[in-house]
Parts: sequence; C-alpha cells; structure tokens
Amino acid sequence: MEKRPQILLSNDDGYMAPGILFLIDLLRPLGDLIVVAPKTGQSGMSTAITVQTPLDLVLISEEPGLKIYRSNGTPVDCVKLALNILFPEKHPDFLFSGVNHGTNCSVAIHYSGTMGAVLEGCMNNIPSVGFSLNDHRVEADFEPARPFLFKIAEQVLKNGLPDGTCLNVNVPLVPEVKGIRICRQGIGKWVEEFEMRIHPRGGNYYWLMGSFRNDEPESTDTDMHALEQGYISVVPSQIEMTSYPMLQTMKSWDL
Amino acid sequence: MEKRPQILLSNDDGYMAPGILFLIDLLRPLGDLIVVAPKTGQSGMSTAITVQTPLDLVLISEEPGLKIYRSNGTPVDCVKLALNILFPEKHPDFLFSGVNHGTNCSVAIHYSGTMGAVLEGCMNNIPSVGFSLNDHRVEADFEPARPFLFKIAEQVLKNGLPDGTCLNVNVPLVPEVKGIRICRQGIGKWVEEFEMRIHPRGGNYYWLMGSFRNDEPESTDTDMHALEQGYISVVPSQIEMTSYPMLQTMKSWDL
Repeated sequence: MEKRPQILLSNDDGYMAPGILFLIDLLRPLGDLIVVAPKTGQSGMSTAITVQTPLDLVLISEEPGLKIYRSNGTPVDCVKLALNILFPEKHPDFLFSGVNHGTNCSVAIHYSGTMGAVLEGCMNNIPSVGFSLNDHRVEADFEPARPFLFKIAEQVLKNGLPDGTCLNVNVPLVPEVKGIRICRQGIGKWVEEFEMRIHPRGGNYYWLMGSFRNDEPESTDTDMHALEQGYISVVPSQIEMTSYPMLQTMKSWDL
Repeated sequence: MEKRPQILLSNDDGYMAPGILFLIDLLRPLGDLIVVAPKTGQSGMSTAITVQTPLDLVLISEEPGLKIYRSNGTPVDCVKLALNILFPEKHPDFLFSGVNHGTNCSVAIHYSGTMGAVLEGCMNNIPSVGFSLNDHRVEADFEPARPFLFKIAEQVLKNGLPDGTCLNVNVPLVPEVKGIRICRQGIGKWVEEFEMRIHPRGGNYYWLMGSFRNDEPESTDTDMHALEQGYISVVPSQIEMTSYPMLQTMKSWDL
C-alpha cells in the first residue's frame, strides 16, 4: 500500500475556527493530517514571528490520521514549531492554510496570517497553499467551494509546486462558484483606514478599518477580477521579491 | 526657495532606538522629517497590522524640520497612521525605515518589521527605503555606513522609485565598508530554530532562535554575497509576488 502523504495544516483564525475544521474535513481523504494552529485569532499577523516571548505547543487531540496542536504563537511560529519540533527529520509533504474567514487577494497577501503560514512552508520548500473565502462571518458557508478546493488540493498533491512558489487561493462569496481561474496578483490598496474614537479619559484612539480599492478595474487577468466574476482565483506566488527591471535601471545610478 | 521634501521615518526597534536617531541625523539635511515609530520593539513583526485592539498616536516632540510621534502599533500601523491621520491630503514624498539593529537580507524581508514599514509605504506609491545593519547590539556603530547611506538617500530623492518598488539596503558589520552593490534577493533560510526550556511548573516551552543558512554560497550576485564581501547590498524589491513562470505552467493543470 502506498504511503499516505503527511499534510500540515494551519490558519490565522485559531485551531477552533470553522474554516480550519472545514479544511480538515476536506483534506482527510487525501493524507494524514497534522494541525498546528494558533490558540486565538491572529488575523493580519502576516509573516510575523515571535522573538520577545516564549512559545508553547500543546497537543489537543489525536486519532488515526489526525493530530491537532495549538500554540500561543503566530501562524508562522506554528509552522516553524511543526517543522522543527514535530518533524525535525523529515518535513511534512504538503502544507495547507485556512480556510480563512475573509479574502486575501491582491496586496492582502502581505498582511494575511493565513498566507504567512503558507510563505513559511514555501521557504522550507514544502508545496504550500492558502485558501480564503470572501466572508468574515463565523457562520460563513464553505460548502459551495468544496469541490473546487478539493480539485486544487488533488492537483497540488499530484503535481507538487516548484521550490519558492506557493498558491494564494481566494473564493468569492457567491451561491454558485463558476469555476477556477489562474490569475496574477492585482494592484489595489486599502483606503480610509481608521475610525477615530474619543477616549473617556481624554485623547483620541483609532480602529483600523477601511475598504479595499481595486486600482485596475479594467484588467481581466487579476485575482480581483476573477472574484468579481464569481470565479475562484489562484495566484501562483513567489518568495523572491527582487525587481529585476529596477535592478537594471539602478545600474545607471550614481552609487 | 525650493520646497523641502517631506520625509516619513519609521522602524521596528522603537522611536528611541539608536538606529532611528542615527537615521534622523543622517536625513535632516535632506528634508523635513516626520517620525512615526513604535513605542516599543517590534522586531519580526513583518507587515503585520493590528485589527483586534485600538491604536494610539502620541506627539513626543516638535522642532523646526522634525516631528516625532510614537504609537502602540506595528511598523505598518505606524505608517498607516501617518498617512491617514497626519497626511490625509498629501502623502509624504519619501519614506525611510531603520536603521535596523540586525540584518534583513535574503528572505528576512518577509519577517522584518523594518521592511514591513517600507512595503506599506511602497503600497501607497511612496518611494520607500529600508536600512539595516548587521549588528543587533544597542551600541551598534552606524558611522562607517554614513556616507554610503547618505548617497543612497540622495539618489532616491533625485531619481525616485517606480510605483510598487522599494529598496532593501543592508550594511555589513565591518570596520570599513567597501562600497555599494545592487543585488538580487538571495536564497536562504533559518535552521535549528528553537531552544527548548523546561517550565518550572512542568511542560516545555520554546524560544525562537536559530541561525541563517545561505543556500547558494557559490552565487556572486546575491545580497548575502555582497555583505560577506564587505559591501552594502541594495535589493530593489517589489510588492507583486506573482510567479509568472508558474502561471504559465499551471495552464496545463486539470482545474
């Protein structure tokens, strides 16, 4: 009998979030699962690491084909703990993160804790995939996406991913998903980002809010466009951020 | 008289760190400075944003050509607060972050709070530059780098940077810097990442430690190589992370 792949799971909404419970259910037929996920919500934690406080790693439950751990660290810390403490000799074969409650398309790849875990897996040359649904609610319905996400997972298990490359997958909030599109990362940003409040003891404080603005609404090859059209977007993303055009341009600088 | 440029400064070591005091001193001749930096150390905070707690923004000092604010947020929060609260109409002309106590070459761009601030400036189309010195100590000596960092700053002020592109500048720990090299982001990773301790009340806990490994020691065009040779490395880096080669490859996937 062929050995089942070992699949590491994480997220940024915490180990009890409905999104990761859905992901466990989705991937169980495909391999042996090890969940290492944050104890509490870590949304917006990006690829942050914890350097000033110590980390824990607690086994929560264990059954054939599924072990669940939680940690007080960030999503990246969770992946680092999994790779170094639980799998020091041989890393898991694949990493999946999510399903996030909220979209992580366009530049959100930089802020996302879900994608932070993915980037950490990718830096360790593990084929790594992040799933996000454009619905922040706890009661978000992941079911319409199930057959599509399963297909993507199957293809990643079959084809692997090149070193230094991962997938950022986003699911639109629609009753019926139209299909899957391979896209580039669109150009956009958050605008009007803070709500000010007056502190009862005096002074102002600020809540980070704001809405996302698509800065290239005419483009049809972006992740934002695919989502707007009711398709799941898949952006193959890379660890290396060098701008090679600018590397050429700067040769003429007086340095 | 020509209007002096407005230059936003941030870092991840906190507004009182020697590195940012050096940066203030370095850049004062070049423009009017506004510092918005974290209240306390935020090393390893990447492009993390604070979504679960409110943020403050406190004016610490003000004199002609220099205002200093601190915030309880991450480096990215500091930049967002600066752009939205202090400069809602017209953004600053340039952003500089650092000088970080510790190197941020290779994949450290993903973990670095210093570079987090830079990426946030870049997402807002502000020419943004991060400076880091390969010395974690509080008493780190930034002076050997002064003429080189000044030259880089002058060139950025003169030439600007294309939208979506920023600079990741790292300084080697050497008595005499040999010069400046434009490089690509090298391939490397951290290994042996945790030190385990036994908790006095029982159980294990873990400190994130480890050392950096250059995974392409033969390459001569990487930031890691430049630093090893005693040169300052400048990596032009971009917000977009799409892997275009993989985008082509995936067209043959069964999706």
